[in-house]
Amino acid sequence: MEINKNYLNLKDSYLFRTIAQKVNEYKSAHPERDVIRLGIGDVTLPLAPEIVAAMSGAVAEMGRKETFRGYDDTNGYGFLKQALRGYYAQKSVELSDAEIFVGDGAKSDIGNILDIFGEENAVVVPDPVYPVYADTNIMAGRKVTYINGNAGNNFLPLPDKDTRADIIYLCSPNNPTGAVYDRRSLGRWVDYALDAGAVILFDAAYEAYVSDPALPTSIYQIEGAKKCAVEICSFSKTAGFTGVRCGYTVVPAELVRGGVSLNKLWGRRQSTKFNGVSYITQRGAAAALSSQGLGQIKESIRYYMENARVIAETLRELGLWFTGGENSPYIWLRCPNGMSSWEFFDYLLNNANVVGTPGSGFGANGEGFFRLTAFGDAENLREAAERIKILLR
Amino acid sequence: MEINKNYLNLKDSYLFRTIAQKVNEYKSAHPERDVIRLGIGDVTLPLAPEIVAAMSGAVAEMGRKETFRGYDDTNGYGFLKQALRGYYAQKSVELSDAEIFVGDGAKSDIGNILDIFGEENAVVVPDPVYPVYADTNIMAGRKVTYINGNAGNNFLPLPDKDTRADIIYLCSPNNPTGAVYDRRSLGRWVDYALDAGAVILFDAAYEAYVSDPALPTSIYQIEGAKKCAVEICSFSKTAGFTGVRCGYTVVPAELVRGGVSLNKLWGRRQSTKFNGVSYITQRGAAAALSSQGLGQIKESIRYYMENARVIAETLRELGLWFTGGENSPYIWLRCPNGMSSWEFFDYLLNNANVVGTPGSGFGANGEGFFRLTAFGDAENLREAAERIKILLR
Repeated sequence: MEINKNYLNLKDSYLFRTIAQKVNEYKSAHPERDVIRLGIGDVTLPLAPEIVAAMSGAVAEMGRKETFRGYDDTNGYGFLKQALRGYYAQKSVELSDAEIFVGDGAKSDIGNILDIFGEENAVVVPDPVYPVYADTNIMAGRKVTYINGNAGNNFLPLPDKDTRADIIYLCSPNNPTGAVYDRRSLGRWVDYALDAGAVILFDAAYEAYVSDPALPTSIYQIEGAKKCAVEICSFSKTAGFTGVRCGYTVVPAELVRGGVSLNKLWGRRQSTKFNGVSYITQRGAAAALSSQGLGQIKESIRYYMENARVIAETLRELGLWFTGGENSPYIWLRCPNGMSSWEFFDYLLNNANVVGTPGSGFGANGEGFFRLTAFGDAENLREAAERIKILLR
Repeated sequence: MEINKNYLNLKDSYLFRTIAQKVNEYKSAHPERDVIRLGIGDVTLPLAPEIVAAMSGAVAEMGRKETFRGYDDTNGYGFLKQALRGYYAQKSVELSDAEIFVGDGAKSDIGNILDIFGEENAVVVPDPVYPVYADTNIMAGRKVTYINGNAGNNFLPLPDKDTRADIIYLCSPNNPTGAVYDRRSLGRWVDYALDAGAVILFDAAYEAYVSDPALPTSIYQIEGAKKCAVEICSFSKTAGFTGVRCGYTVVPAELVRGGVSLNKLWGRRQSTKFNGVSYITQRGAAAALSSQGLGQIKESIRYYMENARVIAETLRELGLWFTGGENSPYIWLRCPNGMSSWEFFDYLLNNANVVGTPGSGFGANGEGFFRLTAFGDAENLREAAERIKILLR
């Protein structure tokens, strides 16, 4: 019996554990201080009424013999696929039902889709980025190469003549930097992938936060992308589903490698190792995409984006360099006075009682940077912004 | 870019597609005939009232800011782990919270747990069996060896001197045969695994159908099993969750291979490629294990098992050899008059308008056998049994 030894090459991440420990120590030493967390990557507003009504109705259906639902299509109910096709049609992207795979969240699909690729592929991951991209490849024994995001390229790296990639991860709007590729830059990645025969895994989890109509919210808005890209998205940040669990992956029919349809391969993976998403959840997801539902979820997004605007305005007043804050719930700032990420974390905690996330936790290039998020309570957030302004002025 | 070429070694399963096609053709030709399906592997009774109430309450909580829940422990809420610990305590099995991993269903966990094992392991799968065990290993490039179930061993194969296994799949009560290992037989597998340093993946999805107190409902009722077995189970057949999606996997703390804790490896896999099960679903699952909930789900199981009894009695009257029907919702019979599985399928469809599942679809050793299931409507099922009796008498 052999274990998968690649797991031993994973580094343990102590990022959020260390943050929790430092915050707890501070609170024990200063129980009277009001600590405000701007580090949280989780939504805080409740599910929209339209979603709640749909899910309540679905629960009741499951309790009556005539309307009970058991196993169904692993890749999602027709009613949800239809809603998703409508959502994409608004982006001028046409999809068929067979190209949409409903799953239990972007994280699962991002990890699981590697099953369909060979081990020898060269993987390119931006630095800094969501750690799951690299970890899932390390688990499979693949070599991961990093491509540098930095202030020079506004944390939006592009392929160059040295880029050698079979699988490319892109996340736009980006976690943690909040940076968003424009059509031209994303087009350069699509062109690269088409030339190289590579596949882009495009993580669109934050697409609903884009308000600038010039920016792409789906990679399929770029010509040729259906021949080289998988798009993975989620209801987590779009509709507050972090505790409900629903996402979707698009694998276009035109996406073929080595003569094999990746759509068919992913379908085979899912039908063998997955059994679909709860009927109740899918009813909730479809309700989020109804015209009334969309109106309600957009209200929550506006609430978060007003938070982002407050933080961005504060940083601008202080003359600090940052990305994000527009078209993204994340704000990524350069730590003031040359502080390291952790130095700034301590400084902010001790002197303003505000908690953020050290950028170094997202990759070597994150050192000297810091992530703030817009998902908190508006009143607390304004208070935190005020404290930051006073401290750093 | 290379695809995972192991996928090309998978055989397409036409079993259920062919059944659907034959049934549709028959119904088109004979629209006046009432075809009864005893082939279905899905529950038909609605969720129990206690579960519906808990899930409705959870949906409402998610709609209020004060009680909304976002991300939480990937491996399940404390309230559900506590309920599961209580459920296992009734089986005289003591578990800790850290040994329980709540997931979205047995199929996902059975497929995904292979991630933590090396590629070179020798895999032993019984024949006939649930096709997912072999397919998921073929996808990972592992060699699968089959161990023969047949009428001689009542479809409960045991290890012998030629058995060479690192990973062993056992399903008891079995799908498709309905056969259940007794403590002594299961003990022989545990002893083999302990000797060989192998790991048993024990699929207990049908454990709730065991009523004979002498039969094991968890492999951990066998001494030493915590040092050699992972147990995978589900609420699908226990509480009618086929459309709700919740299961759980137990990886004991004592299960160590190559100096590495499999519990830690699986925890790392799940925290990287999974993000937990819906809060609403977990409330429903916990309600199923409450004392009121257990009473209600046991009523549904009694209903199905009365169906199984009717089929078993019919086969006994006809003098047909079968396994299952007691302690299992499946009945596995030898086709009469030396018919092949598909010959009997056609004979039953054409002459009794009853649909079952050809045993050959579950492996080479299933040829000449046939699966009937107890999950249908009681009245239809009695009518089907009557027709079978008249036809085969």
